[in-house]
Amino acid sequence: MLDQIDLNQSLTKHEYKKLIEKLTKRLAYLQRELKEKDIPVGIVMEGWSASGKGTLINEIIHPLDPRGFRVISLEEESEEEKRHSFFWPFWNTIPPKGRIHLFNNCWYTRALEKKRKDEKRNLSILYDEINSFEEQLCKDHCILIKFFLHISKEEQKKRFEKLESSADTRWRVEKKDWKENKHYEERKEEFDRMLVETDSPYAPWNLIEATDKHYASAKILSILVKEMEKALDRKAKEAIDAKKSEGCETDIGEQPLRSRILQGVDLSKDMKKEEYKVRLEELQKKLSMLHNRMYREKIPVIIALEGWDAAGKGGAIKRITEKIDPRGYEVVPISSPNDLERQYHYLWRFWSKFPKTGHLTIFDRTWYGRVLVERVEGFATREEWTRAYTEINQMEESLCQDDYVILKFWLHIDKDEQEKRFEERQNTPEKQWKITEEDWRNRSKWDDYERAVDDMLVKTSTNYAPWHIVEANSKYYARIKILETIVEALENKMK
Amino acid sequence: MLDQIDLNQSLTKHEYKKLIEKLTKRLAYLQRELKEKDIPVGIVMEGWSASGKGTLINEIIHPLDPRGFRVISLEEESEEEKRHSFFWPFWNTIPPKGRIHLFNNCWYTRALEKKRKDEKRNLSILYDEINSFEEQLCKDHCILIKFFLHISKEEQKKRFEKLESSADTRWRVEKKDWKENKHYEERKEEFDRMLVETDSPYAPWNLIEATDKHYASAKILSILVKEMEKALDRKAKEAIDAKKSEGCETDIGEQPLRSRILQGVDLSKDMKKEEYKVRLEELQKKLSMLHNRMYREKIPVIIALEGWDAAGKGGAIKRITEKIDPRGYEVVPISSPNDLERQYHYLWRFWSKFPKTGHLTIFDRTWYGRVLVERVEGFATREEWTRAYTEINQMEESLCQDDYVILKFWLHIDKDEQEKRFEERQNTPEKQWKITEEDWRNRSKWDDYERAVDDMLVKTSTNYAPWHIVEANSKYYARIKILETIVEALENKMK
Repeated sequence: MLDQIDLNQSLTKHEYKKLIEKLTKRLAYLQRELKEKDIPVGIVMEGWSASGKGTLINEIIHPLDPRGFRVISLEEESEEEKRHSFFWPFWNTIPPKGRIHLFNNCWYTRALEKKRKDEKRNLSILYDEINSFEEQLCKDHCILIKFFLHISKEEQKKRFEKLESSADTRWRVEKKDWKENKHYEERKEEFDRMLVETDSPYAPWNLIEATDKHYASAKILSILVKEMEKALDRKAKEAIDAKKSEGCETDIGEQPLRSRILQGVDLSKDMKKEEYKVRLEELQKKLSMLHNRMYREKIPVIIALEGWDAAGKGGAIKRITEKIDPRGYEVVPISSPNDLERQYHYLWRFWSKFPKTGHLTIFDRTWYGRVLVERVEGFATREEWTRAYTEINQMEESLCQDDYVILKFWLHIDKDEQEKRFEERQNTPEKQWKITEEDWRNRSKWDDYERAVDDMLVKTSTNYAPWHIVEANSKYYARIKILETIVEALENKMK
Repeated sequence: MLDQIDLNQSLTKHEYKKLIEKLTKRLAYLQRELKEKDIPVGIVMEGWSASGKGTLINEIIHPLDPRGFRVISLEEESEEEKRHSFFWPFWNTIPPKGRIHLFNNCWYTRALEKKRKDEKRNLSILYDEINSFEEQLCKDHCILIKFFLHISKEEQKKRFEKLESSADTRWRVEKKDWKENKHYEERKEEFDRMLVETDSPYAPWNLIEATDKHYASAKILSILVKEMEKALDRKAKEAIDAKKSEGCETDIGEQPLRSRILQGVDLSKDMKKEEYKVRLEELQKKLSMLHNRMYREKIPVIIALEGWDAAGKGGAIKRITEKIDPRGYEVVPISSPNDLERQYHYLWRFWSKFPKTGHLTIFDRTWYGRVLVERVEGFATREEWTRAYTEINQMEESLCQDDYVILKFWLHIDKDEQEKRFEERQNTPEKQWKITEEDWRNRSKWDDYERAVDDMLVKTSTNYAPWHIVEANSKYYARIKILETIVEALENKMK
């Protein structure tokens, strides 16, 4: 892409002044409109060193209401970041509804840095993941506007020299900047490949000729104005369409002769108390040792528990954690998203909770809510939950690329067993808090849930993150199977 | 995905008969509706050997009007296919509007075969390309319904043995089938990865438990009915939406302060006749030799010429071909698509014309019509031409993955030069045929075209298939530059 760019574009001061006045006014207005309409905006600034990203970000934010935007600058990779997966810092800084986030360098710069440090890192895979990430945000109504600021080798050199000529600005030119200038042609090829491979219909690149700063800032502002206007138009159109198709939302997607998984699960599996006690002790000891090794070998582990209400998730979690070092794990219970979380993409709240290297996080219910409760209750549209299978697979694959271990359990009981447990809870004073109106309501939709679970188990069982179905009519049997599965997986990982 | 499937699903004969009767009637009706609504349908059948694909395809086509469908069976890769790129046979057999194509094994089987033959072949890249291919078809309103027929290792063995026990069917079990059975677990993992990586919201996989043939055929038929009904619903909805947004179609997508490429081209470049003659002879000689080598070394080459009307494409083509062996090249002039071509995806007609190994094809105008004339004249919607940049890049990348050389030229002249040439044509009797009403009409939209060309040059200049802008006010200069570029590219390729 860069090869074709003619860098001699410029504006006279007069043209510039006229344009800027018009554009900044409009931008301030659009910020309010976007807030009103709950549209999140991400602005990505990438480009050559000394191409003027900082100055241009200042131009953009100048007319904006400071309560509605945030500038996020990518620093040297922190120790904390090194211990998480590639996308962790970026998911954590995605814009919420109605707010504007400006990224001064971001996942692109980071991807190239990673590659430079680790020759074996596969950039094609990383760019694919970036495309999926951006697509997910855009499908969730975020707008992403990406700029690449381009200057020539000579121009860059001139700017470095000028910066170095003054004591005030000398510190801004680093060794790596001169290195970039020295290897300009190579870097240009790198950038070009990045631009081509991540130019997509939902988040296309805007190339900015940045030799003339007036020209660059006028161009950036006018693209921002145009893209924001387009997003508002789209939103208005969607609102009309949504109104038209009201009432179709509760379609939970019946499939004729669908693949039945749960039906085939053998729930008669059982275990005697004596056997349970012996094996529990043995497995907990093993797990505790493996947990220590996991910590030393810096392996991050995610355990995800899903299952019917009263299937025994709590009891299982207790047996997993009982004998392991409490500084090395965390249990995260997931309920419906709160007001803050609702401002973001549905996967956002999970990303911030994923463990760093050497740590274990146990999720009591998970991101699979999207294709279970949200599907059945109509909180997600058919289009949204259909696409979620791919989104979730992509997320889990990207974690596994970064060496995470993911263990997913579905705790299965039958309808009769659930009723028995519900009754027991209701009749035992100290267990009454465990049972709510909602549990009974969910129970009445057993068939819909079963269908959703069956689909989930098929669509998201992958070789990197398979589902383990746990026959849980017998609590003893279930707990031992879960512990065994975890022990085996960790042993395999640390062979 | 396969791990979760319970293969013991079955139907009683009575249930089956009742269902089938209902479904086949409905299918016949839907075929007519789909034809009426111009919707192309692709049905993909993949699965284990002896899982019953043939029988099931017969069940599907039984109720259909034979004029409206076609069964395409993937055979052993032919010599012709080996000399083309991976997607060539598949693009050539995509369904046209209103017709149903059933693929008995297809790009999936072929991808796995390629991998088995060539360890180095990267399946992830191939699966990505398959996803892009399917997405392109689906975005073009095709529906793709994909089935994977699953049976167990034991069931497969039983079926092979039964086939072998009769002299009539013995021939149907080949060595490679037994090999598949022997390495069942390994193959299952391969299949699973394939299913996960190519399961997409637009073309998801349907897993079919194929132990019980009644169950399998009833499930396949009911999924077909459901997906076809959904497609018809979508079409109806789209028709309403389209009506609503009528009048927006001619928006050719103005971009504020867009990147100007053509403006910066130095059209004063010129060449004297004497120099031209000497260099022409020298370059044509070289090209002729390189063309022979290209043939021997089995390298396929595509030369794509675009440019303003009267920019000299014809003259340039003549100079390229003049001295080379006519058996080794083809010139393909591209005009607006004919009635047959209009029944297909816009890229279809180009795929069938791409050269096989060792051959050269020169396109006089190309697939870039999508982002030039179709954009400017409003024949493609904004959504369509915006996405075409990515689609075209993906197509060219996939060709280059298969070792094609792609050379793209934009012949640039200015408005005055064009007028001069138009006048000359009009005033020279033997050239009058070259100038039409349409040329003058196009000329009146010069600015719109210039904008479209600028965008095209930026968006589709890639390192694997860059654009070469040719300063063509001087015909001599232009021809020499084109020949030089070709000679240089071929020399580089065959270094």
